[in-house]
Amino acid sequence: MRHAAVLPALCALSACAATQSGPVEPQPSARYAFWRPAPVADAQEPAKAIAEAPAEAWRPVDPENLLLLDLKEGGRVVIELAPDFAPVHVANIRAFARAGWWDNASIYRVQDNYVVQWGNGDAKVALPAGVAKQPPAEYDRPLAGLAVRPLGYPDSYAPMVGHAGGWPVAYDPESGRAWMTHCYGYVGVGRDLAPDTGTGGELYAVIGHAPRPLDLNIALVGRVVEGMGLLAARPRGTGPLGFYEDPRQNVPIARIRLAADLPAAERPRFEVMRTESEAFSRYVTGRANRGGEFFRRPAGGVDVCNAPVPVRKVR
Amino acid sequence: MRHAAVLPALCALSACAATQSGPVEPQPSARYAFWRPAPVADAQEPAKAIAEAPAEAWRPVDPENLLLLDLKEGGRVVIELAPDFAPVHVANIRAFARAGWWDNASIYRVQDNYVVQWGNGDAKVALPAGVAKQPPAEYDRPLAGLAVRPLGYPDSYAPMVGHAGGWPVAYDPESGRAWMTHCYGYVGVGRDLAPDTGTGGELYAVIGHAPRPLDLNIALVGRVVEGMGLLAARPRGTGPLGFYEDPRQNVPIARIRLAADLPAAERPRFEVMRTESEAFSRYVTGRANRGGEFFRRPAGGVDVCNAPVPVRKVR
Repeated sequence: MRHAAVLPALCALSACAATQSGPVEPQPSARYAFWRPAPVADAQEPAKAIAEAPAEAWRPVDPENLLLLDLKEGGRVVIELAPDFAPVHVANIRAFARAGWWDNASIYRVQDNYVVQWGNGDAKVALPAGVAKQPPAEYDRPLAGLAVRPLGYPDSYAPMVGHAGGWPVAYDPESGRAWMTHCYGYVGVGRDLAPDTGTGGELYAVIGHAPRPLDLNIALVGRVVEGMGLLAARPRGTGPLGFYEDPRQNVPIARIRLAADLPAAERPRFEVMRTESEAFSRYVTGRANRGGEFFRRPAGGVDVCNAPVPVRKVR
Repeated sequence: MRHAAVLPALCALSACAATQSGPVEPQPSARYAFWRPAPVADAQEPAKAIAEAPAEAWRPVDPENLLLLDLKEGGRVVIELAPDFAPVHVANIRAFARAGWWDNASIYRVQDNYVVQWGNGDAKVALPAGVAKQPPAEYDRPLAGLAVRPLGYPDSYAPMVGHAGGWPVAYDPESGRAWMTHCYGYVGVGRDLAPDTGTGGELYAVIGHAPRPLDLNIALVGRVVEGMGLLAARPRGTGPLGFYEDPRQNVPIARIRLAADLPAAERPRFEVMRTESEAFSRYVTGRANRGGEFFRRPAGGVDVCNAPVPVRKVR
């Protein structure tokens, strides 16, 4: 684990604090003041970094990880599943899809600047075969086994953030744990109060500013890779938590299937930029240093949710 | 300026780095690893902090700073203007409103996870009296004069962040500059390429994850305090940058007025939590340490856009 090497230096931080005198409010932020990586003047435009990424900088999305949500009114939302982060919940979702669990489900909650949520509610009580009724709390996982590319900028929530296997992650080298981050378009498993972890039968997608306090408190299972507007551009629910008060407001879902269960010719195909590639590093540097004719003052920084992993549809 | 006191300690950071040996990639993030303020176990629920805030913890919104956008289809979006951050642009906006400039304007751009934008486009060419054709670049302002409450958590973009006068701010004690941050629901001035700064005739509101790279590159003039769903829940435009390709998709605006220009009895009234109040500190601590029955692992941190300043309507 290559971060181990920095541990001794970090201990010195408290030594620094000990040498301070006088009022040092607000100490927490002050430690961060002034230190920034220097802005990169010749950073590539993110779009250019994507366009010029070589074929080997992309990984295909396994059709077993591609969930297709078809609305009755027309339109499809495509979700990439993340079994490396929530294997039991993802297995449940595959089993739900294969059992036709979501035929005639609906979107029933739209809370502004938070989430849109869908499922069957209480319509069905007997779970399909192969669905774990109470999966483990897959809210984090071992850091070991993930090839993390550190983002290189501070985070407001976690000791470290970066990307691994095409996913945004936060991690704590001290505890050896890693977890996916709640970014725009990311999909999680609705649950009641702990120890319930949700089955995966009720899912939500983030439609606002990254609700990162949900990290480590709920299972993330993937992200929307196409059709996000079909979820986000919904009238907000007027009930508590954005639930639609009148069931007639619910948006009917025709079905949710796995791409793997479609004939090969009908499967949509997507590729995700490899986050360990040089192309991705160029892309992140570009996101952190927006330039060109419009941006005159590059930020010299970016948060993990504002460098969304590039995904492209393959025709 | 109370941050000056911590400067000497910060110099010691580079001394720490100098004592490191061996590979320390990624050095920038590593400096942030492990240091976190301890999570607060008994933090108040944010909602409770708001509910219990005393009357003196709230400031009324001046009707001169309250912009009312009425849609032709019905529904009103209410925006609080921020003259302390962009006085010339705000003065322009008031002059536009008083001239009826936006009668029959429209929403013509909705870009997913970014912005919704409205105005007259090129419909009118002669600016109303009192409108500055090219306002100064009000992208930042002096830090002096702002009573900043530091957030207390690291930021991915700026040396320091916090709140001042009821607004989220980023700031740099070294340069002595401060600026408002692009958070969900915040309103800015559309512009072409620099040195154009926009007149204020075309405005946008953020409808996705905080696009903080826009900070320091464009003038922010306020925030939506009511009716955000009326902007965010719009079909996404299919043209470049989310512009509607067919003008018939545009959402007609009936008018945009200042509350001050309505009879007193018809003015909506809002109050903003004073960000220098104890109540606001309790609220921020609560946002950074979500607890209760659902959140089992408080983040112990929050970003400046995820502690939205509480605003309430007064009946």
